[in-house]
Amino acid sequence: MTTSFAQEGDIVLLLGKDKREFMFRLRTGAELHTHRGVIRHDAIIGHRWGEQVKTHIGYPYLLLQPSLDKLIRGIRRNTQIVYPKEIGYILVKMNIAPGVRVIEAGTGSGGLTLALARMVGPEGRVYTYEARPAMQALARRNLERLGLADNVVFHLRDIAEGFEEREVDALFLDVREPWHYLEAVHAALRSGGFFGALLPTTNQVSELLAALEQAPFGFVEVEELLLRAYKPVPQRLRPEDRMVAHTGYLVFARSLFVPTPIADHADDAPRSTNDEDV
Amino acid sequence: MTTSFAQEGDIVLLLGKDKREFMFRLRTGAELHTHRGVIRHDAIIGHRWGEQVKTHIGYPYLLLQPSLDKLIRGIRRNTQIVYPKEIGYILVKMNIAPGVRVIEAGTGSGGLTLALARMVGPEGRVYTYEARPAMQALARRNLERLGLADNVVFHLRDIAEGFEEREVDALFLDVREPWHYLEAVHAALRSGGFFGALLPTTNQVSELLAALEQAPFGFVEVEELLLRAYKPVPQRLRPEDRMVAHTGYLVFARSLFVPTPIADHADDAPRSTNDEDV
Amino acid sequence: MTTSFAQEGDIVLLLGKDKREFMFRLRTGAELHTHRGVIRHDAIIGHRWGEQVKTHIGYPYLLLQPSLDKLIRGIRRNTQIVYPKEIGYILVKMNIAPGVRVIEAGTGSGGLTLALARMVGPEGRVYTYEARPAMQALARRNLERLGLADNVVFHLRDIAEGFEEREVDALFLDVREPWHYLEAVHAALRSGGFFGALLPTTNQVSELLAALEQAPFGFVEVEELLLRAYKPVPQRLRPEDRMVAHTGYLVFARSLFVPTPIADHADDAPRSTNDEDV
Amino acid sequence: MTTSFAQEGDIVLLLGKDKREFMFRLRTGAELHTHRGVIRHDAIIGHRWGEQVKTHIGYPYLLLQPSLDKLIRGIRRNTQIVYPKEIGYILVKMNIAPGVRVIEAGTGSGGLTLALARMVGPEGRVYTYEARPAMQALARRNLERLGLADNVVFHLRDIAEGFEEREVDALFLDVREPWHYLEAVHAALRSGGFFGALLPTTNQVSELLAALEQAPFGFVEVEELLLRAYKPVPQRLRPEDRMVAHTGYLVFARSLFVPTPIADHADDAPRSTNDEDV
Repeated sequence: MTTSFAQEGDIVLLLGKDKREFMFRLRTGAELHTHRGVIRHDAIIGHRWGEQVKTHIGYPYLLLQPSLDKLIRGIRRNTQIVYPKEIGYILVKMNIAPGVRVIEAGTGSGGLTLALARMVGPEGRVYTYEARPAMQALARRNLERLGLADNVVFHLRDIAEGFEEREVDALFLDVREPWHYLEAVHAALRSGGFFGALLPTTNQVSELLAALEQAPFGFVEVEELLLRAYKPVPQRLRPEDRMVAHTGYLVFARSLFVPTPIADHADDAPRSTNDEDV
Repeated sequence: MTTSFAQEGDIVLLLGKDKREFMFRLRTGAELHTHRGVIRHDAIIGHRWGEQVKTHIGYPYLLLQPSLDKLIRGIRRNTQIVYPKEIGYILVKMNIAPGVRVIEAGTGSGGLTLALARMVGPEGRVYTYEARPAMQALARRNLERLGLADNVVFHLRDIAEGFEEREVDALFLDVREPWHYLEAVHAALRSGGFFGALLPTTNQVSELLAALEQAPFGFVEVEELLLRAYKPVPQRLRPEDRMVAHTGYLVFARSLFVPTPIADHADDAPRSTNDEDV
Repeated sequence: MTTSFAQEGDIVLLLGKDKREFMFRLRTGAELHTHRGVIRHDAIIGHRWGEQVKTHIGYPYLLLQPSLDKLIRGIRRNTQIVYPKEIGYILVKMNIAPGVRVIEAGTGSGGLTLALARMVGPEGRVYTYEARPAMQALARRNLERLGLADNVVFHLRDIAEGFEEREVDALFLDVREPWHYLEAVHAALRSGGFFGALLPTTNQVSELLAALEQAPFGFVEVEELLLRAYKPVPQRLRPEDRMVAHTGYLVFARSLFVPTPIADHADDAPRSTNDEDV
Repeated sequence: MTTSFAQEGDIVLLLGKDKREFMFRLRTGAELHTHRGVIRHDAIIGHRWGEQVKTHIGYPYLLLQPSLDKLIRGIRRNTQIVYPKEIGYILVKMNIAPGVRVIEAGTGSGGLTLALARMVGPEGRVYTYEARPAMQALARRNLERLGLADNVVFHLRDIAEGFEEREVDALFLDVREPWHYLEAVHAALRSGGFFGALLPTTNQVSELLAALEQAPFGFVEVEELLLRAYKPVPQRLRPEDRMVAHTGYLVFARSLFVPTPIADHADDAPRSTNDEDV
């Protein structure tokens, strides 16, 4: 992040005037083929960030380091990814910061993994669970490509068997039926820790909320984020014609302290404060 | 973040069943007076996070460490703050992460400062500019209270005089007329660096876009985020009745490399790629 | 609507510079008491629409005929009303126009009744059902006050007993559990007729959708409308700070022709085309 | 609207299980060619609304009368149309109802014209202005096809020359620079009458607001409507993935009474009440 010039191994983003983008890793001897001509990687290496580079027919592209936003959108994937707008909000709501230990499941293509790995830094750790070997391999390659794999522990395991870690600061579930795993979630989180989930349908949200009411979690919140982009034209400022209308509902909760086994003291268990505000 | 028990000096969040919240720093000998009774800080110290603590008349509060979201909303302030939903997105779009060097102006009450300071960590640095002494003092106290002041350099200075730093990774302006400072912004940012601004009115957005077109910036984006909260009731899931309809428009751009002084080569200056897609 | 001057019996809207509004019926001898002074109705009668009238201390109010939007918002009510943004869309989606015959339940305070009565005109008819006598009386007074009661047939009756009319063009349910009445809805609607409902929670929407799949309805749609107001200041154009985040989900469907009793031919019944696009 | 069976000359909507729709006028001897086979119009005539009709290879389509919503979306057009969500709201905000006289410009493809013509009924009148002969011809054919042309007066004329009518109840401008015509608008509207405009960019809104402040209009409002559709699946209820993010900003105002020529008494002219609430 600190060098001024593009180097072998860097992930670069080329942006054309036609708004087409290319994101790739610089490798000596390689070539980028665009519909506007060819650029040799060697002709990019050594250029300053923010400069123009040109194809063999002279079409210019802007040379940039990708933002986290671009990296997330640009990873190789064969699953629906968590969108940057949700990822940013997850970071703020779940207190993700340097040094934090966080569990995530499923790994998927690794988009959220990559954001978490970047934010917790080398002092923190991301523990990511995935049951499908091919999916894990894809995510691992995505993280390694970005030099972030050292911050991540990859588990190849069904979370129905529980999580290995204890006393983690935060735990995020991007799985179809998160309500099945709340006991394991509670066992892995430190008391007061942050739980989050992303769910596409209202039925899933209702089911998760019902399960949270029966489990030692409190301070439950459900939110959704809508992102609207504008055409950046000063004399004709207006929103884009179309937008993403839905990526998912975010559910957040805090883990509560349970002095004795849940089964024995169900009635004493701390309850969601939301029980009563209906 | 890593201890299991509330200790002297910790910032705590008490959450009542009535949804009232109290956020404060634990000090031996102090007392919290609520409309449901009194709690001595000494009676909180030593409790586990996620436990209940009670007032002298027995009203229970949940003891939690505040999230970054809560800290931002809860700081002492006498200005409009940047909201957590925008802050999360700014982090992702502007590549804020451990080790990053970022300039921010104005400091205001320090809400964004605090989020940036937390994310860049001790290896990074936030340089924050504010022209009003009383405002800077407030922000500094807010940051010190949270133990984050070491990651921040406070400048008491009008940014019309320029920024002291060079080659910073990112620069965010939360000021009324950001278009006046683009030359100084470009001088402070490293080539390819991230520029961002938050503006409440469409007129300001148009004015900033027009200035960006004349300056060495590219990849300009304008976006807004809408956050909708739901009542977390499983059998009657529905959005809250009202929501915040507007906090501001976010403008992002990338700093471009300029080989020679702008004044001499205005026609050669890299231009926004958005010029032509109207 | 066609006279140029305010007359005895007209519903008038007074709008102050302080944005306070008063809506009432002109009666000779009456007085309006505002926090800015008193206006005698006799001093309003005979003024032109769009003129200013003044209180005894000289505070000016703009004299206007209320729009349908204002009338709906301004009726005396003791229920949640259907909002103008939904009403406008209902008119367009359910083909409400002069001459149409439409059933509505429940009557509530009569906000939607009033809009329907106005749109179908004297050639059409609104049949409105309400089980609570006091509520019906309130709605009837609201409609009479506006001179629209002649277009409306008021039924004091629980719709669990069915609808009296047959072959109506459209039928709208604003009741808590519309799924109980689909057989009666189908019996009242002409083949191909328009069905609509407004529901506050996602759980209700799911339940109605499930019932529609089992009944002779097709072309099912679920939609919601968000209205965002802007501060109308040319130099500082921006959305209002807050907005209504939710009024309800609209569900629309078309009644299908069933050649024989539903019970005998459940498998042949036309089905929602939405069954298969999941 | 009142017959139970499809007849020669009716506009019909065929809806397939694959969600493809066809809207056309029934003509004896004609044929509809779909990708699922052919249907002769004669085989449709005489069917009940809400019934199924089948192609020669047996693919079923639902036979329906189109709603106003469908008619608007389905007209032949070579311009951007006003969307049904905005049209419904315009009806409610501008008091469009049976018997109303309303001016509209430009006619465009006639989408709004058609909605207005339907709502004002035979007792009302729509006066629509268009400067381009080909466009007017298209709109006229669209209206004639639907049997609504009798409610409409078509003017082939640039509105820079003013409007012919006086004392109309409402006037809507869907033109690029509505601020040029406010004097003519005021001359055509009755005192207290309803003015509305639809504008795609924020710059246009600002310009119109500035002009309204200088003209005898009051009660100015700026609003936008967002429509979000849901997948109508009871077990997996969720919004559609994408939505229309912007169609335009709606501006509404009321015409004020001006006792003497504007030019002579500029300082006495009633002013927007919004002047002062900034």
